[in-house]
Amino acid sequence: MAIMRLGRAELKVMDLEKSVDYYTNVIGLEETGRSEGRVYMKAWDEYDHHSIVLQEADSPGLDHLAFKVEKLEDLAQFEKKVELFGCTVRRVSSGARLAEGQAIRIETPTGHQVELYHEIERLGKKVGSVNPHPWPLETRGIAPHALDHCLLTGEDVETATRFFMEALGFKQSEKIMTVDGEVMLGSFLFTGNKAHDIAFVKGPDKKLHHAAFHVDNFYEVLKAADILSRNEVQIEVTPTRHGITRGQTIYFFDPSGNRNEAFCGGYMTYADFPTITWTEDRIGQGIFYHRRELIESFMKALT
Amino acid sequence: MAIMRLGRAELKVMDLEKSVDYYTNVIGLEETGRSEGRVYMKAWDEYDHHSIVLQEADSPGLDHLAFKVEKLEDLAQFEKKVELFGCTVRRVSSGARLAEGQAIRIETPTGHQVELYHEIERLGKKVGSVNPHPWPLETRGIAPHALDHCLLTGEDVETATRFFMEALGFKQSEKIMTVDGEVMLGSFLFTGNKAHDIAFVKGPDKKLHHAAFHVDNFYEVLKAADILSRNEVQIEVTPTRHGITRGQTIYFFDPSGNRNEAFCGGYMTYADFPTITWTEDRIGQGIFYHRRELIESFMKALT
Amino acid sequence: MAIMRLGRAELKVMDLEKSVDYYTNVIGLEETGRSEGRVYMKAWDEYDHHSIVLQEADSPGLDHLAFKVEKLEDLAQFEKKVELFGCTVRRVSSGARLAEGQAIRIETPTGHQVELYHEIERLGKKVGSVNPHPWPLETRGIAPHALDHCLLTGEDVETATRFFMEALGFKQSEKIMTVDGEVMLGSFLFTGNKAHDIAFVKGPDKKLHHAAFHVDNFYEVLKAADILSRNEVQIEVTPTRHGITRGQTIYFFDPSGNRNEAFCGGYMTYADFPTITWTEDRIGQGIFYHRRELIESFMKALT
Amino acid sequence: MAIMRLGRAELKVMDLEKSVDYYTNVIGLEETGRSEGRVYMKAWDEYDHHSIVLQEADSPGLDHLAFKVEKLEDLAQFEKKVELFGCTVRRVSSGARLAEGQAIRIETPTGHQVELYHEIERLGKKVGSVNPHPWPLETRGIAPHALDHCLLTGEDVETATRFFMEALGFKQSEKIMTVDGEVMLGSFLFTGNKAHDIAFVKGPDKKLHHAAFHVDNFYEVLKAADILSRNEVQIEVTPTRHGITRGQTIYFFDPSGNRNEAFCGGYMTYADFPTITWTEDRIGQGIFYHRRELIESFMKALT
Repeated sequence: MAIMRLGRAELKVMDLEKSVDYYTNVIGLEETGRSEGRVYMKAWDEYDHHSIVLQEADSPGLDHLAFKVEKLEDLAQFEKKVELFGCTVRRVSSGARLAEGQAIRIETPTGHQVELYHEIERLGKKVGSVNPHPWPLETRGIAPHALDHCLLTGEDVETATRFFMEALGFKQSEKIMTVDGEVMLGSFLFTGNKAHDIAFVKGPDKKLHHAAFHVDNFYEVLKAADILSRNEVQIEVTPTRHGITRGQTIYFFDPSGNRNEAFCGGYMTYADFPTITWTEDRIGQGIFYHRRELIESFMKALT
Repeated sequence: MAIMRLGRAELKVMDLEKSVDYYTNVIGLEETGRSEGRVYMKAWDEYDHHSIVLQEADSPGLDHLAFKVEKLEDLAQFEKKVELFGCTVRRVSSGARLAEGQAIRIETPTGHQVELYHEIERLGKKVGSVNPHPWPLETRGIAPHALDHCLLTGEDVETATRFFMEALGFKQSEKIMTVDGEVMLGSFLFTGNKAHDIAFVKGPDKKLHHAAFHVDNFYEVLKAADILSRNEVQIEVTPTRHGITRGQTIYFFDPSGNRNEAFCGGYMTYADFPTITWTEDRIGQGIFYHRRELIESFMKALT
Repeated sequence: MAIMRLGRAELKVMDLEKSVDYYTNVIGLEETGRSEGRVYMKAWDEYDHHSIVLQEADSPGLDHLAFKVEKLEDLAQFEKKVELFGCTVRRVSSGARLAEGQAIRIETPTGHQVELYHEIERLGKKVGSVNPHPWPLETRGIAPHALDHCLLTGEDVETATRFFMEALGFKQSEKIMTVDGEVMLGSFLFTGNKAHDIAFVKGPDKKLHHAAFHVDNFYEVLKAADILSRNEVQIEVTPTRHGITRGQTIYFFDPSGNRNEAFCGGYMTYADFPTITWTEDRIGQGIFYHRRELIESFMKALT
Repeated sequence: MAIMRLGRAELKVMDLEKSVDYYTNVIGLEETGRSEGRVYMKAWDEYDHHSIVLQEADSPGLDHLAFKVEKLEDLAQFEKKVELFGCTVRRVSSGARLAEGQAIRIETPTGHQVELYHEIERLGKKVGSVNPHPWPLETRGIAPHALDHCLLTGEDVETATRFFMEALGFKQSEKIMTVDGEVMLGSFLFTGNKAHDIAFVKGPDKKLHHAAFHVDNFYEVLKAADILSRNEVQIEVTPTRHGITRGQTIYFFDPSGNRNEAFCGGYMTYADFPTITWTEDRIGQGIFYHRRELIESFMKALT
């Protein structure tokens, strides 16, 4: 009974075709299907049918996140633990979206919609599974390997953390605390060996801070920044390192204003990873290791 | 009940002081303790007391590998599964080596000694766990982040694979098969999100092919190669990419002839990772993606 | 008759010991001598006695820049060309500073003091000149290879450019022009194969914008940023790319407020390089390729 | 009066179309013209009409190298110096090849044909010269920036060196000497700020060892190696560092057996660069810094 990974994010976008153009040509995802008002996409290094779903909407934001569990029967077990924690959960029958099987849909303490699922059609990779080359020819744009993690905001980061740890089995890699140690302002949660699979910072409930894509190394972060600049995409944070996770990063916005990140290089975690603490007075260096201070838009722009 | 990681390798070395000099000054591990005939070491990005134990011996080789399990009670459960598989397993009381608690010691189908343990003293990292900097000042040598994986040889790779999968819960990321698909010549096994934590290639039982250390990126592989060359360490394979795991690598030998690797950049796995197959006719490209042929020493030099 | 390179910059600093600490431990230069009120330094990959001179002063800024010419007899020839251009020039006898021979001192049209010299004591490199290793052991801090270039400000960039081209033999790699093409706002000048050895942007006469050090690659830029952050040095511009020169960069300040840069990766030039033009409406992307807009401090902070 | 750079190499190839396919799709040059039995190519970061000319022939090898001089009138001056040195030189009228103006053709002491020229049609770069992006969209293959240098063999390296220094104005960055210091076995020569523009090693006269292309960094060397492997091009030397020049490199062969190199990262030179000496007993580390021994093919395979 285990969550394997953040399997998908369904993002609300306002101009569907413009967004498809951005996510395929600038980010470099592959369009894998369309259904009413939705476009499905995967990154080149992912096996499943999609990791990003664009949903046409009147305002930007996150429809839902979904985590893929190891076994189908895990769903029932997680369902119980979620109910025990006191969150609402309901079954979602297969067929709501393309290529997906059944799922459970949870409302987290921060009001976000999170699904757990096991079944999804697998498309494989262009490089194949027999004597594969390390990377495919003819990628476009940033060409990230995969969806990596999401950062959400919520009023009660501590309860969100408890929910993900107690009900869903996540571990906490890092936390941001007020200097007096009383209030948790940020929480970084992982399920396998990554520095984070999902994270929360204090802010309004139900909001998305960013969805991040994994790239291989700091030269790929530079390439991503070059591609974004060339395509006149708004870059909020140019290449830098996070203190938290130690990863390297850039932040930018999709055409609807949803924040994206290209991320590489965080440390490896294990279940016995001792949670790292950042104190609020050092939060600037924690978030942007080089700049060492927050920027207003980074705190304010949420979708 | 889960294995978290390859926690340590106890290597047999012939000239202990020369080996300590190599592992501390060239590899750049930190000496953390000594007991009769043994020296204990950790990499800078590891929390536990040691990941490498050097044991003074008449010949090089591997005394044992050990995997750290998530919970102490996992030991009993794994004990049962190992016995059920038909391998011998015995309890090792704490105190045999420094800083370690109780363990179970297994003889694998390939005759290797593998321990599972949960308890070990934790030393932490020089960067600390409160507002940490991303890397410590004053590292020496290659300064890898951590022990990464080991490759062992065995007559029956298929049974070794079954043992690690069925008794210990590993998954298989890649396998090398004869062209007719009959015989498994290589097997790459993981337990979390790494491309491999342990691997087997066909060869004599009980032997070590190499112990690998994790470095961050390809420039660190270059730095490692520079440092080895400057220290006149024998480099068997200069910087290149593996087809298998897609990682970047160099191979070299410790003063006793145990092979080491500095490795970075393999893909991320999950429990649903579909095993990649390499066919024997492409094994050259699978092992050394650029050279595309094996080298004799790589097959012959085992300890 | 040719200028080889920017050989040194004499910087005015207010707290000499604090500055020495910064330039040796954070930048990672080597102190090579002291004379009254001055400390001399070189980078590890330079042969000459010094490339940076720190001069104790009441305010920050640039005492003078100096270019090393190919032959001693070049001095007389440049002297004539400078006079012909209409700038004042005078002989500076050897002995004014440590390790230096005779020089000519020019006042440029922008009021900067520029010396030309050929003679300077050579200290060589720690790696030696017989069977050298590619880099020395025991570097500290950022450890740049060499002083790379300086950017100065002046009211009349066009005349400064003409002076460097006509009197000193420089070529122009790039220029920034008002949209109507009437006024030159920036000028990037080179003497060999580098993207720039000296540059001017429109601003007050006699001022220094920055002195830049050469690092090898973008990972070294990241390392530089990490080291600066750890040492709490003010970083003005975190890792990014320039449109102009195409190089990768960070900007930061020494303890007296003189701006420094760590720079890598600009293109190669030759005498037939066709000058690239940036128009003022795209100056943001020209200076900071990712951010695509200027920042106020970058225009205002001059010493 | 100065040589600016190695402007072109005319290579003899046996199967023209196969060679064009290799140089355009694998190396990633752009075809810029064809004339009888010749195909002309340039790299994306070069301005001139061509840097590589493929000439259909019965055997591989080098037809000639050509250096571009700063001014047209330099030709007459170099002509005199070459004659004074005692080498034959003749005028080549424009029109022999596409896009080229007049030239002088020299037979070097090692029997190689070397042309000097100033006039050649300029095609510019896809990124343009007004507000250019740092790199073009839609490159193919390795996509080097430019032709970088060539290594030739000759019986008398010392005389070849004297010729290039005395008649053509080159400087020597490095030399390989027998241990007794009597015989020069290798010589590395530069004309501006590069570690080498042309080099010689002891061997048969008139032969080409390799033609090298410049790539930006070590990740680009890795990319080059990946592309070559994928295209089943024979890679002779996988990614490594040279002791000589300190650059990073791979060697491989074109379809006719002419050796190519992808090279990055050598140090910067100036006219006062003190020649580095490698002694024959350390030649292995000088050539291949990590392997530290020569490989037979590298000495034997010449065209």
